[in-house]
Amino acid sequence: MSDFAQKLDRYAELIVKVGANVQSGQTVAVNASLDSVELARLVVRKAYEAGARNVKVFWTDEVVTRLKYDLAPDEAFLEEPKWSAAEKLELARAGAASINLMSDDPDLLSGVPGERIANAQKAASRVMKDYRVLSRGFKFSWTIATAPSKGWADKVFPDAPEQERIGLLWEAIFKLVRADREDTLAAWETHLSELKRRADILNAKQYRALRYAAPGTVLTISLPDDHIWLGGRKQNADGVWFVPNLPTEEVYTAPKRDGVRGIVSSTKPLSYAGQIIDGFSFEFEEGRAIRTSAAKGAEALATLVQMDEGAAYLGEVALVPHRSPISDSGLLFYKTLYDENASCHLAVGGAYSSCVAGGADMSQEELSARGLNNSTVHTDFMVGSGELDIFGVNADGSEEPVFIKGAWAF
Amino acid sequence: MSDFAQKLDRYAELIVKVGANVQSGQTVAVNASLDSVELARLVVRKAYEAGARNVKVFWTDEVVTRLKYDLAPDEAFLEEPKWSAAEKLELARAGAASINLMSDDPDLLSGVPGERIANAQKAASRVMKDYRVLSRGFKFSWTIATAPSKGWADKVFPDAPEQERIGLLWEAIFKLVRADREDTLAAWETHLSELKRRADILNAKQYRALRYAAPGTVLTISLPDDHIWLGGRKQNADGVWFVPNLPTEEVYTAPKRDGVRGIVSSTKPLSYAGQIIDGFSFEFEEGRAIRTSAAKGAEALATLVQMDEGAAYLGEVALVPHRSPISDSGLLFYKTLYDENASCHLAVGGAYSSCVAGGADMSQEELSARGLNNSTVHTDFMVGSGELDIFGVNADGSEEPVFIKGAWAF
Repeated sequence: MSDFAQKLDRYAELIVKVGANVQSGQTVAVNASLDSVELARLVVRKAYEAGARNVKVFWTDEVVTRLKYDLAPDEAFLEEPKWSAAEKLELARAGAASINLMSDDPDLLSGVPGERIANAQKAASRVMKDYRVLSRGFKFSWTIATAPSKGWADKVFPDAPEQERIGLLWEAIFKLVRADREDTLAAWETHLSELKRRADILNAKQYRALRYAAPGTVLTISLPDDHIWLGGRKQNADGVWFVPNLPTEEVYTAPKRDGVRGIVSSTKPLSYAGQIIDGFSFEFEEGRAIRTSAAKGAEALATLVQMDEGAAYLGEVALVPHRSPISDSGLLFYKTLYDENASCHLAVGGAYSSCVAGGADMSQEELSARGLNNSTVHTDFMVGSGELDIFGVNADGSEEPVFIKGAWAF
Repeated sequence: MSDFAQKLDRYAELIVKVGANVQSGQTVAVNASLDSVELARLVVRKAYEAGARNVKVFWTDEVVTRLKYDLAPDEAFLEEPKWSAAEKLELARAGAASINLMSDDPDLLSGVPGERIANAQKAASRVMKDYRVLSRGFKFSWTIATAPSKGWADKVFPDAPEQERIGLLWEAIFKLVRADREDTLAAWETHLSELKRRADILNAKQYRALRYAAPGTVLTISLPDDHIWLGGRKQNADGVWFVPNLPTEEVYTAPKRDGVRGIVSSTKPLSYAGQIIDGFSFEFEEGRAIRTSAAKGAEALATLVQMDEGAAYLGEVALVPHRSPISDSGLLFYKTLYDENASCHLAVGGAYSSCVAGGADMSQEELSARGLNNSTVHTDFMVGSGELDIFGVNADGSEEPVFIKGAWAF
């Protein structure tokens, strides 16, 4: 087996055994693009070898996606594409695991009229609503991993010779998911334990709020009563654990919907709906983003927070050391799965129900009463840097450092 | 544009404009395998250019299909894969056009236990039943065309250097669909008119039966009252014409279910469900295949006629001259779409409802009362040769030649 084949094999093993943690007799849905055929086929093989009953691959093709944006009539973007949503919902309800291999070109939709993109996003959000409730509630096992595409590799390695870029991106991915190590699964075991240790400490603290201080950022985020910090493994409705993100470096919880105030500035560009948003900031009052600005992609950012009522409120607060394997790579991936795991981040949009005690079994009304935001949107943006300090605010108003200059204080 | 690109372009144009005849504002479903990415993308582009509102591609991958047959547990093949059937049915009901690009390796399932294949075929047949009723009734526009895959090209050109086979198969396809000619669409216009002329003659004749005589074949096929011979173009429920098969050389109608008697021998191998059946024959009594034999693939043949009650009866009788562009190519394609258009053929299984006057609007009960066979199966097999004579039997019992030594008698 070549060196590449060995790493790819470990990566596929990681996706099936740790990410989705496929169980014997389980059905598996794989979402993959035509850019990740080799990895997807290997994942299918390993899923069957792990005992899967049936593995269905939903292939997508970015060329076909772009053709629609370029050539379809305007009204095509207003419709709800019921087509595949019903199928995916049926699988999720039946407890099928979902494996998502992302390869998107961050610039795929560059030049497409913003209204088309916004309409398509809204239509997709509406039709995926029930599925999203199940996935955000961790009712079924799901995982997201990546595979290079030409467009993505071009974006991450613009200065490398063209024919080397995809190989370089593969090597970067292998390193970040620890597939360059012979003991990939054992290394993940250690890593997941460490994330759990951090989350346990924060859960014991039960801070009333977090205060962020960094250049361009003066922000206070209140946390709900009985909030839960999560990191690494999740449990599905059957009590089986899985790891939603490969890689994952974050420990996170839900903010209190109306308890966010101040200004926060992004520290990395955001690839949203095939467009790049950069140099942006939000001003929050009573939880709501009352102002946004962006050096690039201002229109896309404004569209994002107007997607629905909850899109202007925060749904996630996540802590990631500024020094992490991903940020140490010095690469900007233009892909949330990587960039969010290299940086403290926040998300506008819906919160994860498991972030308050008993939340997984609450109705949306109960979750809202507990202070969790509800939205069809959930989009992370990066606020971490080597200059970010975060303080935990105790019930009595006293503060203690959680992050100092971008690193864990404990 | 290279010579290849030009031919591919004409082929895609033919598929969209003649095969599916995509209308402005129409939705289009494309079924394609990972072997036909280039053609599929071009078809998507041309469908949008023809005014399609939305084009959805359902990609399949033979490697994933084979992995399931090799690795999934037995019970996985007994289930109805409801997944994509509901979506395709919804599209068909809404009048979406369906474009099917076939690339299957004829030997894909070689070595797979027959029971798995039979179970999978039955499960798929059950779940596709409603869709099939609409497609066989020509309620919506659909077309089948092909694109080479490595496995298929290996089978058609086993003696050519390996790296040349796919190119050779492309050239053969281009020739047979007239994409090697600058006036592809005009040539099709002429060809479709000629098929209609033949069908018109046969419709005026209204033979009571056809009598087949050839080495190994002594067969009489009764025809229903008011049967209709079809060829080339069909009309969908909205009256828009389309051409289901590219290429198409046949003129066909439905036999009378219980009016088939005698023995018929195949003249070409049949690729059925990823297996090759060769040197086979059927013996019919009162319409039913009471005996089958095969030099190769006997088990698969026996499975086929036992798929359901109607699978042992004939559902199509088709006339194709032995000298046709396809048979003149001297190639054996191991693909029904080609081989059926190079040879007179019959099909076991369900009949096309449009083959009797008013049939498109009849219920299954009415169609059965008119003598049309009903089955989840519809599988063509070749009986044509340079030695086949076919006689039309008039109402008074007199006979006249329809085919003499494999060629039209008129």
